[in-house]
Amino acid sequence: MTMRVISIDPGYDRLGIAVLELVNGTEKLLYSGCVLTDKKLSLNGRLFIVGEAFQKLVETYTPNTLAIETLFFNQNQKTAMGVAQVRGILIYLAQKNNCQVYDFGPQEIKIAVTGYGKSDKAAVIDMVKRLVAKAPKDALDDEYDAIAVGITCLAHHGRKYQK
Amino acid sequence: MTMRVISIDPGYDRLGIAVLELVNGTEKLLYSGCVLTDKKLSLNGRLFIVGEAFQKLVETYTPNTLAIETLFFNQNQKTAMGVAQVRGILIYLAQKNNCQVYDFGPQEIKIAVTGYGKSDKAAVIDMVKRLVAKAPKDALDDEYDAIAVGITCLAHHGRKYQK
Repeated sequence: MTMRVISIDPGYDRLGIAVLELVNGTEKLLYSGCVLTDKKLSLNGRLFIVGEAFQKLVETYTPNTLAIETLFFNQNQKTAMGVAQVRGILIYLAQKNNCQVYDFGPQEIKIAVTGYGKSDKAAVIDMVKRLVAKAPKDALDDEYDAIAVGITCLAHHGRKYQK
Repeated sequence: MTMRVISIDPGYDRLGIAVLELVNGTEKLLYSGCVLTDKKLSLNGRLFIVGEAFQKLVETYTPNTLAIETLFFNQNQKTAMGVAQVRGILIYLAQKNNCQVYDFGPQEIKIAVTGYGKSDKAAVIDMVKRLVAKAPKDALDDEYDAIAVGITCLAHHGRKYQK
């Protein structure tokens, strides 16, 4: 059995999502994208759209694992609360769809992707493009961040799925 | 058509839930209870249990409305983040099950239930017992708080459903 991970950079304004799988020890990207929601909608409406988009991808790609960034406490509290609500929805839906859930902090992600815990955003994106053959050439940061979370999860937990 | 509201005092440790309906202008309590989750479980596991319990009640009572307290910013941030994640799950599931969602702040709830925005907890519980014929005699505060949120929602929005 192979680990197939749906990985998330959570947000209600922009949600980065990727689906990766380990194929012969190499990360294969099956999907990546970014869900954007209309700022004119209510927060509750945006939460629903994000949840529905995630559920649809889970049904399409049938991952067995969810990888998601831990919550930041350094952003403004209103934004953090919105992101936390998104996170709850995705963690619930992933478990509902039989995924195991793993969290990763920003430093763990940087180390897994670049080998250095204090890399900047550009270095992470550059390494994502080197590591993943089908990574998009030009995309929103949220999409690269989601791929980076997926790479981290495969590095930490992918091997135990290989038989 | 009558407003049937599932109302929530959100939490991952204890989740207060009630279902109320307006019958001839009077609040009728169809259900109230409190979901308790095991402290030994992971937060993700507890989020799942709370979501499943809510979904089951929605299927049993087919409410058309969710009423939920707004998020507090005055509690410790870790707890607030956990509660926000619960809130996201319930708001998503309610919309998935065709409920309209309304938020109420603590002061709105106190005014609707007791007529005074600075009532203490005991006064709210006392009025819940007077207003709702089938309110439990002895229950956890979370359960009374959930009923209070439901009373508030019926007071604010219940009449427009009456035809």
